[in-house]
Amino acid sequence: MSRIYTAALAIIGDEILSGRTQDKNIVQIAQWLNVQGIRLTEVRVVPDLEEKIVKAVNELRAENDYLFTTGGIGPTHDDITVDAIAAALGVPVVMHPEAVAMLERYYEKVGVEITEARMSMARVPEGAELIPNPVSGAPGIQIENIYVMAGIPHITAGMLEGLTGKLEGGNPLVSVTVGAYSPESEVADLLKEVMKAHPDTAIGSYPFFKEGKYGSNFVVRAEDADVAQACVDDLGERLEAAGFEKVPGGI
Amino acid sequence: MSRIYTAALAIIGDEILSGRTQDKNIVQIAQWLNVQGIRLTEVRVVPDLEEKIVKAVNELRAENDYLFTTGGIGPTHDDITVDAIAAALGVPVVMHPEAVAMLERYYEKVGVEITEARMSMARVPEGAELIPNPVSGAPGIQIENIYVMAGIPHITAGMLEGLTGKLEGGNPLVSVTVGAYSPESEVADLLKEVMKAHPDTAIGSYPFFKEGKYGSNFVVRAEDADVAQACVDDLGERLEAAGFEKVPGGI
Repeated sequence: MSRIYTAALAIIGDEILSGRTQDKNIVQIAQWLNVQGIRLTEVRVVPDLEEKIVKAVNELRAENDYLFTTGGIGPTHDDITVDAIAAALGVPVVMHPEAVAMLERYYEKVGVEITEARMSMARVPEGAELIPNPVSGAPGIQIENIYVMAGIPHITAGMLEGLTGKLEGGNPLVSVTVGAYSPESEVADLLKEVMKAHPDTAIGSYPFFKEGKYGSNFVVRAEDADVAQACVDDLGERLEAAGFEKVPGGI
Repeated sequence: MSRIYTAALAIIGDEILSGRTQDKNIVQIAQWLNVQGIRLTEVRVVPDLEEKIVKAVNELRAENDYLFTTGGIGPTHDDITVDAIAAALGVPVVMHPEAVAMLERYYEKVGVEITEARMSMARVPEGAELIPNPVSGAPGIQIENIYVMAGIPHITAGMLEGLTGKLEGGNPLVSVTVGAYSPESEVADLLKEVMKAHPDTAIGSYPFFKEGKYGSNFVVRAEDADVAQACVDDLGERLEAAGFEKVPGGI
C-alpha cells in the first residue's frame, strides 16, 4: 500500500451555518480529491469570524497534507478569509502584483470600473501563489499547504480543474457498489464476515427506503480495483445465498 | 438583547467525506435551530473512527449549549456513534429498556424477525433518554447536552419535529433579504456604511450570476424584526440612490 495522503476542508461562511445556502463544495471537492489519490478526512464549517477561522485553519493544516478552504474571498466586508489565513500563518497581507494585473485585465475586458473594493481581491497572505480562476476575475490562493478557493461552486470547479494532477497523492481510491433490497439489520452479521475476509477494503452500508421496500447500497473502497471487486463479488454471493437479489452498481 | 444560545453539529459518516452522499442535514438542522432561537456556530464532518468522533464531540459539546450529531446509529459495523459518545462521556453502553420495548413493538408491527443486530439499536450511553422516531424503529438519543440523530434526512426531520419547542433558546433570529443586480465590488463601501448605521444587525452579501447579469442578495439578520427591516429599508434606498433597482425578498 502506498502512503495515504489526506486533506481537510474548511468552509467559511455564515450563509451555510444559517441554513440559507445548501453546500455543494463538500461533494465536489471530495470527489475531486478521490481522483487525485487524496482522502478527505475532516470538514469544518465555521462562521465569518477571524478567531474561529484561525483556529480551524491551524488545526486542520497541521493534521493533514493539504487544507482547502472555500468562501469569503470576495470584495465585501464579510470576506475575511485572506486576513484570517494571514493571521493564522503570522504573515502580513500584501497586494499580489500578478493578481493586480489579472484583475485589471479582467475588468478592462468586461468593461467595468476598477475600484478599490475590486482590487481588494488581489490581497494575499505574503508568500502566496495564485490559483487561476477561469470563470471570474478573482484568483484562488495557495500558501504552504493551504488552497484557498471560491465559495460559489462553479467558480471552485474551475479552480479545481486548474489544480488537477498538480498535488502529490497516493493511489486513487477505487469504489465499487452493490445494492440489495436487504434491510441493514438483516445483513449486519454477513457484512462483518465479509469485512474479516477482505481486510484491505472498507465497506460502507447505506440504507434506503424505495418503492415501499427497505434496502441498502454497499460501497466497497480499496486502493486496488481487483481487491475491491473481489470483495464485492464475495458480498454479492453471500447476499444471494441469504435470499437477497444483488444489484451490481447499486440501487 | 437576550442571551445567545449556540449549537454545533457533528456529522458522522465516511459517505459524506467520500463525496458519495450530498449532505442535507446542515440546512435542515440550521433552519430548525433558527426557529428555536439557537444559532448553529460550527459543523464538523468526521469519519467513522471512534477517536475522531470522540475528539469532535468533546470539543463541540464544551463550546456550545447544544451538540447535535447525525449518522452512524444504524445496526451495521460502521455505526459506531453510540460507542463513541459513551467513550467521550466516559460512561458504559447499556440497553435502554424503553428502546428495547419500542423496537420489539415496531418489528412486530411490520412483521420482521427480531435479531441481535436489530436490537443493537436499543444500545445507548448510560444515562441517556430517547428521542422518538416517528418514521422507523430506532430512536434518537439525548444525553447531557448531546442530541444524537439519524443520518437519513427524513428520519432526522421526524426527530426534530418531536424536539420542537423543547430546547431552551433565545429570540429567534429574523432575516430579511433584498436583492439587486449590483456587482458586489460596486457596493462594498455602501454596505460598510449601512453596517455602521445599524450596529444590531449582521449583513451577509451573497453574489450570483443570473440571466447574464451579476448581482447580490443581501441578507440582514437581527433579533428584532423592526431592526432588521429598518436596515433593509436603508440599504434599499442607498442601492437605488447608487442606480441599482432593489428587489425586496431577493432575486
